[in-house]
Amino acid sequence: MHEPFFLRGTLLYSSSPDTIEILDDGWLLCRDGKAAGVFRSRPERFAGLDVLDYTGKLIIPGMTDLHVHAPQFSFRGLGMDLELLDWLNTYTFPEESKYEDLSYAEAAYESFVTRLTRSTTTRACIFATLHLPATLLLMQKLEDAGLSTYVGKVNMNRNCPGYLREISTNQAIRDTERWVVESRERFSHTKPILTPRFIPSCTDDLMYALSRLRAKYDLPVQSHLSENLGEIEWVKELCPRSKFYGDAYDQFGMFGGGYPCIMAHCVHSNDAEQELMLRRGVYIAHSPESNMNLASGVAPVNQFIDRGLHVGLATDVAGGSHESMLRAMMHAIQASKLRWRLLDQSVRPLSFERAFYLATMGGGQFFGKVGSFLDGYELDAVVLDDAGLEHPQPLSARARLERMVYLADERNIAAKFVSGRKVL
Amino acid sequence: MHEPFFLRGTLLYSSSPDTIEILDDGWLLCRDGKAAGVFRSRPERFAGLDVLDYTGKLIIPGMTDLHVHAPQFSFRGLGMDLELLDWLNTYTFPEESKYEDLSYAEAAYESFVTRLTRSTTTRACIFATLHLPATLLLMQKLEDAGLSTYVGKVNMNRNCPGYLREISTNQAIRDTERWVVESRERFSHTKPILTPRFIPSCTDDLMYALSRLRAKYDLPVQSHLSENLGEIEWVKELCPRSKFYGDAYDQFGMFGGGYPCIMAHCVHSNDAEQELMLRRGVYIAHSPESNMNLASGVAPVNQFIDRGLHVGLATDVAGGSHESMLRAMMHAIQASKLRWRLLDQSVRPLSFERAFYLATMGGGQFFGKVGSFLDGYELDAVVLDDAGLEHPQPLSARARLERMVYLADERNIAAKFVSGRKVL
Repeated sequence: MHEPFFLRGTLLYSSSPDTIEILDDGWLLCRDGKAAGVFRSRPERFAGLDVLDYTGKLIIPGMTDLHVHAPQFSFRGLGMDLELLDWLNTYTFPEESKYEDLSYAEAAYESFVTRLTRSTTTRACIFATLHLPATLLLMQKLEDAGLSTYVGKVNMNRNCPGYLREISTNQAIRDTERWVVESRERFSHTKPILTPRFIPSCTDDLMYALSRLRAKYDLPVQSHLSENLGEIEWVKELCPRSKFYGDAYDQFGMFGGGYPCIMAHCVHSNDAEQELMLRRGVYIAHSPESNMNLASGVAPVNQFIDRGLHVGLATDVAGGSHESMLRAMMHAIQASKLRWRLLDQSVRPLSFERAFYLATMGGGQFFGKVGSFLDGYELDAVVLDDAGLEHPQPLSARARLERMVYLADERNIAAKFVSGRKVL
Repeated sequence: MHEPFFLRGTLLYSSSPDTIEILDDGWLLCRDGKAAGVFRSRPERFAGLDVLDYTGKLIIPGMTDLHVHAPQFSFRGLGMDLELLDWLNTYTFPEESKYEDLSYAEAAYESFVTRLTRSTTTRACIFATLHLPATLLLMQKLEDAGLSTYVGKVNMNRNCPGYLREISTNQAIRDTERWVVESRERFSHTKPILTPRFIPSCTDDLMYALSRLRAKYDLPVQSHLSENLGEIEWVKELCPRSKFYGDAYDQFGMFGGGYPCIMAHCVHSNDAEQELMLRRGVYIAHSPESNMNLASGVAPVNQFIDRGLHVGLATDVAGGSHESMLRAMMHAIQASKLRWRLLDQSVRPLSFERAFYLATMGGGQFFGKVGSFLDGYELDAVVLDDAGLEHPQPLSARARLERMVYLADERNIAAKFVSGRKVL
């Protein structure tokens, strides 16, 4: 490992959902890729260490995008006029089919990884497509960029067009197993995650076979849950024995418990579903912009936190239009206010503190001790430079951070570290 | 006037709320500051005219921000945790009081006008503060920037802190009259608009006196209406004879009819209020991001359009966080989808076409024939350069424009014209 070093600057990090620790002109010790202490001044005993001096800038934990579709990056900001199921058939499936062509995948994934690298995201849980070669290409690019990610080759074998469908369950499982083995051999911080698209696009036997594969290789799982009302009705028809959508995954053995599992959206999860997610330790990937753009609704994210559910934030590109987790924080706060005003005053709007927690520590936990500068956390850090956002008077560090959520773009990301590695 | 000239590029402009005219590689003739024809190729008879060649770029009408607070620009993206009335007292009034200091105003307004100039906005209806010198300073900056705007010295003499209150009705009227006369003498495309802050901050006698001043100088009016439920209740108490909020303005003779009038928000306007706005020709400044950030709700903007009300789009900085009208379009579409999903399925989500219409032609009408490239419209134009947003395949002009709404920032604004004057 590298020598220990200091990051110097204005430090802001969550220590709980409701608390942002703030240290103006602080010193953050990085040792073995981990946060090893936050200091008001450099301790005498560390006088000899290197210092990366970002005085005047904000240093925050790297953010975790808990749900994003790499192949959809190419049509972000387009086709925002449909609900989920029509949107999939009209825009998404035709686009994803193009990733059979590796030269198309090369151009599109290069663009995605480049933008992701320039963002505040240090960790991500990513859907690829069903195509094995393109998925490995994406993983190679992510590995080279130095980000820490889970990537899923998508599984789907029904209710999707012939041009984007796995031919048989056997073929799907053979491909998936090959992909798991090869990616584990090739990559160190880019890991495979089992990715059945969602119940409607996977037959029962595919789900059971994936569940066996999951156990064989001790894999985590990601999928979609209770995003859209039409989708939920459809799942009831497809899995008549399930008590609710999440129960369908659970019956297939694909809903967490002894292994990590992420479900994106959970906009319409009822109490029983939330209860089961709590018991199974399922992570919710809250995707507020996507849920607005596809007119799905707004998940009661404050309720999730209050109930002790695992929940993080997600861009869900291309349901969401942008890779920026800062923008995802903005949308999370805004959507929660409309949910409160228009639907249900029993769940308060999301505070800035909680939005920051979701983007950093909430989702980061899926990767272990990630998303804070508390001792022992992975040293994922982002340096924000807000000097270009002129202001006629001094601002507190908290105010500067809040402003970044609404105003920052990639020009404000001055440096980025993943487990102590400088990746930008 | 200047010689006629052509703008060449991909032209997109509304001809109605539901129609975007699109001409790939078109020629737009500008004569006497007005659009004088759109052509597929340069007509022979105009062979000698200058051509500003933006081939490959998108050329759209300039956008009208129908409601924005210049002094609040300095705290955009801050203090997003309160509803309207607390927000005013906690953040807004203290900030606005600083504009008594001309050196503060100089720095803050310079920042606002610079950013506005770099945006897609060519026209705006702007609130200043109650301070006369700072308001004239702002107007001078806007005049110099070449934008076409209405600016209001704010009137407020009750329910606001002593440090931000006009001392007496007589003094308020004297100041306002001086400001009207001086600004009319000094500026050609920066015009005064009467600006009572809103009913709660203006006594009855101030409102009546403003109404007389309005008639004497034939002034337009701008204010706020039915933004927040607490505010509406308060107006009921303050004006017990009014049938609804808008009726209170109407009883003071400050609700349009024979003169132009803009009311911002109208989130909670009931049928009677909408009916009166229709009869009086009142313009609604739809401010979706602000209405999210302050948890006010979502105005039924499609209903406004269907009923034939005048409606345009607004950023409402600093209720809104950003000066970008493209972002305001995004928020308008997103908010309308949540309104549809969470509150009222009788009002459909806003289409992309309608959002574009609101940002250009809808609000532009307040300035006359503004916001389109139809013959005779003022030549307000913005050139969008999306080359930096790489895409793995060709996109239609409409798709490129849609994408700009979600992804563009000031780097994508390549040039801007107001009434044929190049201002960027």
